[in-house]
Amino acid sequence: MKAWQYTGDHAPIQQNEIPEPTPSPTQVIIDVKAAGLCHSDVMYMETGDRAMPFLPMTQGHENAGVISAIGADVVGFAVGEVVGVCSSGVQPPLGMFTPGGFADRLAADYRDLARVPDGLDLSLAALATDAGMTSYHAMIKAGGAKAGMKVGVIGFGGLGQIGARAAVLAGAEVHVAEMKEDVWPIARAAGVVDCVKDASEWAADAEGNPLGGADFDLIVDYAGFDTTQKALNAVKRGGTVVQVGLGKPTFTVITPTLLGRTLIGSLGGTVEDIEEVFALMAEGEITPVYEEIAFDEIGAGLERLKNNQVTGRLVARFGD
Amino acid sequence: MKAWQYTGDHAPIQQNEIPEPTPSPTQVIIDVKAAGLCHSDVMYMETGDRAMPFLPMTQGHENAGVISAIGADVVGFAVGEVVGVCSSGVQPPLGMFTPGGFADRLAADYRDLARVPDGLDLSLAALATDAGMTSYHAMIKAGGAKAGMKVGVIGFGGLGQIGARAAVLAGAEVHVAEMKEDVWPIARAAGVVDCVKDASEWAADAEGNPLGGADFDLIVDYAGFDTTQKALNAVKRGGTVVQVGLGKPTFTVITPTLLGRTLIGSLGGTVEDIEEVFALMAEGEITPVYEEIAFDEIGAGLERLKNNQVTGRLVARFGD
Repeated sequence: MKAWQYTGDHAPIQQNEIPEPTPSPTQVIIDVKAAGLCHSDVMYMETGDRAMPFLPMTQGHENAGVISAIGADVVGFAVGEVVGVCSSGVQPPLGMFTPGGFADRLAADYRDLARVPDGLDLSLAALATDAGMTSYHAMIKAGGAKAGMKVGVIGFGGLGQIGARAAVLAGAEVHVAEMKEDVWPIARAAGVVDCVKDASEWAADAEGNPLGGADFDLIVDYAGFDTTQKALNAVKRGGTVVQVGLGKPTFTVITPTLLGRTLIGSLGGTVEDIEEVFALMAEGEITPVYEEIAFDEIGAGLERLKNNQVTGRLVARFGD
Repeated sequence: MKAWQYTGDHAPIQQNEIPEPTPSPTQVIIDVKAAGLCHSDVMYMETGDRAMPFLPMTQGHENAGVISAIGADVVGFAVGEVVGVCSSGVQPPLGMFTPGGFADRLAADYRDLARVPDGLDLSLAALATDAGMTSYHAMIKAGGAKAGMKVGVIGFGGLGQIGARAAVLAGAEVHVAEMKEDVWPIARAAGVVDCVKDASEWAADAEGNPLGGADFDLIVDYAGFDTTQKALNAVKRGGTVVQVGLGKPTFTVITPTLLGRTLIGSLGGTVEDIEEVFALMAEGEITPVYEEIAFDEIGAGLERLKNNQVTGRLVARFGD
């Protein structure tokens, strides 16, 4: 079968012909129909050979497709079912530690499968499994966004747009900090009440006191470029900052600004999170911006991501 | 009446004769019987005049005594009752923003009062209101220490000894990191299973892998001297680090080590926390090390604290 693989030494991903996978007793084989392209895929290649336990590695960790074979111990799933695969489940991360879904077929543990509701487009289903799960988990499960809360979203990209919308749906008053002003109308259309260029604007009050307006209940930082301190400055006592973005290898906090606040590093999510995102997408409540490409365009798509030439998410569609 | 006051300009605290306080409608007057001496008192003086809204300021924020007068709107308390005063309640912090308890009498809001159980020594009652409340809140309320958890305590001083004991009583397996080996026997007597000199020893496994042994559920850092990262290194995924100590003005975190972890800045506590500590002290379950001094020795006592010449807590007893 065909697979896009990282071969090491920072080389661009390349298309290879590789053997078909066979399922272990707890795995299913999925005929991949949709594979999302993620900044993490670019990061893995840039990190070099040490990011992967073996090479070449088939990348892709945001997938949906149809089950075509099942292992002997698989429970609750059958051939022909449409599923998405959780990228932070019982199986080591797809596309980094185990072969991913930039390929015709993918082996996945049945405990990492989320059922795709009837009628949900598989491009949306694919991006629900990582961009959706990660952003939703950070906002709703780690951050606990709910009605009555004043919530900040830092970064309105692939993850931020889903997280912000999830918070709006939960009933929160949602504010966005995003440098690219051209996406502000998309944010407002999603129910965001206000956009600013930089999160530092949130902490100031009308009189110009730089920390006088710190009244956010929750801020989820999907960017991580020196934004942790700005977020801590803007949450009130008892408030929470959830860190998702990993823009910088370290960050520094002014110690007293942490007092009375909680800082959570959110990582991944669960099959349950994916299925909750599936349901919201099937109802038309979460409609992230994405662009479809062909299987053969995956390599070029990652180059576009690397060069910051993508709005929303890229999803490769194939196998039909 | 007599009061130990900070007069400004980094001068040592001095004893002055000042007018008697009168209660506002929601305040009571307490004849102070016990006043704990805290590192914060030293810090206020070292910070200089800007720490206080007005000068001279009567210091002391860890007090117990007997109610001698009540305001018109006070509910639920009567003259003659024995109480402790919460230092992080509705009234601005005692001894910094409102006059504290290094004085014959003290005015306090009735909503900040904790009832002292019969028979509890007032030195213990006093230190329960700040050292007790702060350490207990961080461990039990913010950290959620409970049976089955592996808990680390960084710093076995005035706060750490109470926090560690509270965790032992909650049924946790408690480990202590404390440079001063002479207090290790006190920690072991309190039920701590193991002591190390430095928290960095917790993250390493038996084979010498520096991060292989990261299996703590909860670490409470009562020190704060470059220990946040060591604590994050030693907690497992899903674990929590609670920061109490403010040893350094900033701290730096290696971003990926926060992922899947929660970092809480715990600040103060509640009247309920104090009353829970009172109950454990009255049962003989929490028996912190302390030394009693006279009212006239408060100035010299703060000098001893500043010079790190105190084991456990200093409590001034007077007014009998």
